[in-house]
Amino acid sequence: MADCFRLSHTSDTSAARLGVLKTAHGEIPTPFFMPIATKGAVKTLSSSDVEKLDAPIILSNTYHLYLRPGIEVLKEFGGLHMFMSWERAILTDSGGYQVFSLGAMRKITEQGVTFASHIDGSRHELTPEKSIQIQQVIGSDIAMVLDECTPADSAPDYLADSVARTTRWAVRCKSEFEKGRGESNNPNALLFGINQGGTDEGLRLKHAAELSSIGFDGYAIGGLSVGEPFEDSCRIVQALDGALPTDAPRYFMGGAQPDEIVEYVKRGVDMFDCVLPTRNARHGLLYRFAQQDVSKPDFFESIHVTNEQYKYSKEPLVESKDNDFISQELSRFSLGYVRHLFTVDEMLGQRLVTLANVHFYLELLHHLRLAIVSGKI
Amino acid sequence: MADCFRLSHTSDTSAARLGVLKTAHGEIPTPFFMPIATKGAVKTLSSSDVEKLDAPIILSNTYHLYLRPGIEVLKEFGGLHMFMSWERAILTDSGGYQVFSLGAMRKITEQGVTFASHIDGSRHELTPEKSIQIQQVIGSDIAMVLDECTPADSAPDYLADSVARTTRWAVRCKSEFEKGRGESNNPNALLFGINQGGTDEGLRLKHAAELSSIGFDGYAIGGLSVGEPFEDSCRIVQALDGALPTDAPRYFMGGAQPDEIVEYVKRGVDMFDCVLPTRNARHGLLYRFAQQDVSKPDFFESIHVTNEQYKYSKEPLVESKDNDFISQELSRFSLGYVRHLFTVDEMLGQRLVTLANVHFYLELLHHLRLAIVSGKI
Repeated sequence: MADCFRLSHTSDTSAARLGVLKTAHGEIPTPFFMPIATKGAVKTLSSSDVEKLDAPIILSNTYHLYLRPGIEVLKEFGGLHMFMSWERAILTDSGGYQVFSLGAMRKITEQGVTFASHIDGSRHELTPEKSIQIQQVIGSDIAMVLDECTPADSAPDYLADSVARTTRWAVRCKSEFEKGRGESNNPNALLFGINQGGTDEGLRLKHAAELSSIGFDGYAIGGLSVGEPFEDSCRIVQALDGALPTDAPRYFMGGAQPDEIVEYVKRGVDMFDCVLPTRNARHGLLYRFAQQDVSKPDFFESIHVTNEQYKYSKEPLVESKDNDFISQELSRFSLGYVRHLFTVDEMLGQRLVTLANVHFYLELLHHLRLAIVSGKI
Repeated sequence: MADCFRLSHTSDTSAARLGVLKTAHGEIPTPFFMPIATKGAVKTLSSSDVEKLDAPIILSNTYHLYLRPGIEVLKEFGGLHMFMSWERAILTDSGGYQVFSLGAMRKITEQGVTFASHIDGSRHELTPEKSIQIQQVIGSDIAMVLDECTPADSAPDYLADSVARTTRWAVRCKSEFEKGRGESNNPNALLFGINQGGTDEGLRLKHAAELSSIGFDGYAIGGLSVGEPFEDSCRIVQALDGALPTDAPRYFMGGAQPDEIVEYVKRGVDMFDCVLPTRNARHGLLYRFAQQDVSKPDFFESIHVTNEQYKYSKEPLVESKDNDFISQELSRFSLGYVRHLFTVDEMLGQRLVTLANVHFYLELLHHLRLAIVSGKI
């Protein structure tokens, strides 16, 4: 099933791996990071900006795209690639995560989940089949199965029932995916399963075995970064390293600080998305390297550019590097200027820090790939 | 006084002129348009974006920069060019227009004007001398004298008194400008006078003679676009064509729609600024050419990209043109996509239409220069 993935190197000292993921819109060296384009745009950035950042793949959200612009518009444009003018790869979530976040506004049954739109309260139903159908209209290069991302405080019984249902939904998703492939806006798309089970290692391993036996192009680890201690999250990821197929890509779904990404890479994860670099940017939080050796502790820092201490600072927002267009562009602007932009509510400030933070996360993964090659990780 | 300006061509059929304005940060073909960077940024754009738009000069607002980031920050950076990383020309207004707009929060005396900050209510005084001092810290390439922009409904007596005071302030500004030149952040800056007098042609001509006799590097026409009929505005500009020195640049201060700019150019105006392309962009109003011959009526149109009718539109935001980087970049994005961005509150929408509209105004002036050469205007 994993013809899409070629593993080229595994670390001697950890479970870190190097490989290449083949998608219908390009081959992507792993491990990699996907900036989040929730509603068809990485907030404040155009597709050409994201190209300049050298991101080979972005993540977009099925729930949001389904509501707006809606399926009919995406059909007319022939998919999200054409709609947003992005010729590289796109991964979409199933829509489940946002729907489940609606709380009282949604209801789960075996069939799927019914929910009220957060925009106008209109009623909708999301089933495994419908999630796949939407993703095939979007034309995602990597579609995700519909799962339930269980809360960190789920009772054991609920957790087991939920995971069993997620497995049944995974089977339905795969069936629908193959059925709709020919008519889809991306006939060469990949489908990933999603492992759940909270922090219950036994349940996680059982579910991993079930998913492997169904067979997917890749496997996501869902249901973490939902409030559990980081140690539990690491323990689960480590346990799954031995349980998920070695020859398929593994995708950690959910927020991860830079140092957490390093720990997950050491435990065999190949793919990440994270809203932190973009969301935090809009509040003036800037990620930057304290040193480039990402195997060292404290390799990064995050600073609040809005702080008074940067009022007179001529320090560049980003250090300029050779052959790195974005760093050269961003090095023109001082922390003092960017602070001013935030102070006077100029949205350019949010944009410049977004560029800097996405650049940081992409560079982090680049450094990690080098560190795996050189045996530092 | 007007060593800064070289007139190269005057139309046979109108008062339209071609020339070059020399500033400390580059020579600029006239007539030209200045995008507005109120608080040290053209809203949503970075200095490198404005470079890519090929704008040779921007306008920034003394009042806003004085309050934030403030004089001490601008001193530390050596002026606004360094602060915002912009190596081309900058014109600043005197700060008077914003202060006078504060209404009850300001008081005019012979000495100057006292006002309360719109941000925190703190008390400040703006005198002709202080306006020049601030502009010399900013390091403007073109500084403006402090004037009173009289309301359209000013009583004749008030108007005459105000213009007389504006003349006295102009003398004080020139004196302070020469005194501070050596210590300024731009020793080769230019100083422009500002003609006032409402729609009273006699008063306008008298004031023009007074300003000419004081002697400035250029002359602005202020106090128009403040609510008077467009015909009155045209009449005043036409009358001033014969009264302002021919060999100095003339600058129309204030808002002007594209077709109004054409009329002012025909009446001998060389320089424009206007908030419409940027402000309207943020509400989804897109300017574009209906045809490229700007001497024809209805050469442009403005459309609301947020309208339902563009929901499925694959029409590009801007038509791609050879050797025009910005049009090529913007032609990637459809009206349907840009409409979607506005619908879901993605600020990228505002940014893309801002780029398109500033590009339109700059292109309009480019077409006007060609039309003057070819005798079409």
